[in-house]
Amino acid sequence: MGQRSVTSAQARTHRVPQQDRSRNTRRALLAATVSMLAEEGWAATTVAAVAARAGVSRGAAQHHFPTREALITATLEQLFTDLTDRVNDSFDVPAQGAARVHRVVEYAVEIYTGTEFKAALQVWAAAASDPALRELIRPLELRLARAAHQMTMAALGADPDDENAFRLVQATLDLARGLGLADTLSDDSARRAVVVETWSQQMAAALFQ
Amino acid sequence: MGQRSVTSAQARTHRVPQQDRSRNTRRALLAATVSMLAEEGWAATTVAAVAARAGVSRGAAQHHFPTREALITATLEQLFTDLTDRVNDSFDVPAQGAARVHRVVEYAVEIYTGTEFKAALQVWAAAASDPALRELIRPLELRLARAAHQMTMAALGADPDDENAFRLVQATLDLARGLGLADTLSDDSARRAVVVETWSQQMAAALFQ
Repeated sequence: MGQRSVTSAQARTHRVPQQDRSRNTRRALLAATVSMLAEEGWAATTVAAVAARAGVSRGAAQHHFPTREALITATLEQLFTDLTDRVNDSFDVPAQGAARVHRVVEYAVEIYTGTEFKAALQVWAAAASDPALRELIRPLELRLARAAHQMTMAALGADPDDENAFRLVQATLDLARGLGLADTLSDDSARRAVVVETWSQQMAAALFQ
Repeated sequence: MGQRSVTSAQARTHRVPQQDRSRNTRRALLAATVSMLAEEGWAATTVAAVAARAGVSRGAAQHHFPTREALITATLEQLFTDLTDRVNDSFDVPAQGAARVHRVVEYAVEIYTGTEFKAALQVWAAAASDPALRELIRPLELRLARAAHQMTMAALGADPDDENAFRLVQATLDLARGLGLADTLSDDSARRAVVVETWSQQMAAALFQ
């Protein structure tokens, strides 16, 4: 038993750091994919280019992601996980009233104005003319949209069965997506703040009428 | 004088159809660029490929548009002209009230859910990672956004100095852009109709409060 235990412990000692390394490599590749898509666009974001950006050997990258489709799918899955993880975090929102609505609208808009959205937009645009890619990312996009909706409803403190709140949140997320798109060519933050303020007032009036 | 007049008339006879042909060729190339961008994406939309789609010789296409940048810029200019021409057309909107607001919101959303928007989205996504292209299309994009805003204000029958209407129309166009983006991967028209209805009610309440 003694001999076997030692061997097993030794194996574990070696195995655990290797698993860590593998996990770290995977994460580095996914993070590099997001920043590369956002900054250099779809065409530039190949497995080889992402590997170079992440400081990972091409062989190791291809071990994790044999194709660009596998890399892109995993990246969108990671965005989904990151987004849903946020649902479980405590929200720093005022307890109630118009101030809470304003903060929640801001929060929803933040989802669509970050690097993640700019990366997703590149995949979206590529998928518009690539039926195979579209089939691949369509279910992921639906899950992302649903997660954003649930998160926003929860942040509002709205009852999931409240039809009025449900539809207002849908409109809020469409607005947020449009604001995200307007932010891709230049910094649109000043104009955006006014739009967020305008819509927050409408939303508060509609919820508390 | 007789001889010269005849020659001049002959030259005109030949020149006019040639100008027509040239104008038709140009229009065919611009129309092919829009449909090609929307259906096949940015990477596929080269001058040569557009020429083939339009049934124009490569040489004739390059005479009109020596570079892809020239072709893309001219296409965006054409979208701008088409959009502003619509401002001068009579609007088929109800005279006033909530019904008019609803029709105007639908109208604004239609701007962003057509083939033209899907084409523009491809240019937008490409420009996100191409500073030279971004510089080229940024002023055109601003003009397009301003034209859409003016058109929507006019359709509403709103006073251009009405700050409240101004901001609500801005938010409406951001919403419309977001709805356009949501429509690129699949037909989103059923969900969109509900969002348009929700938004129109809010907009009418805010305008007529």
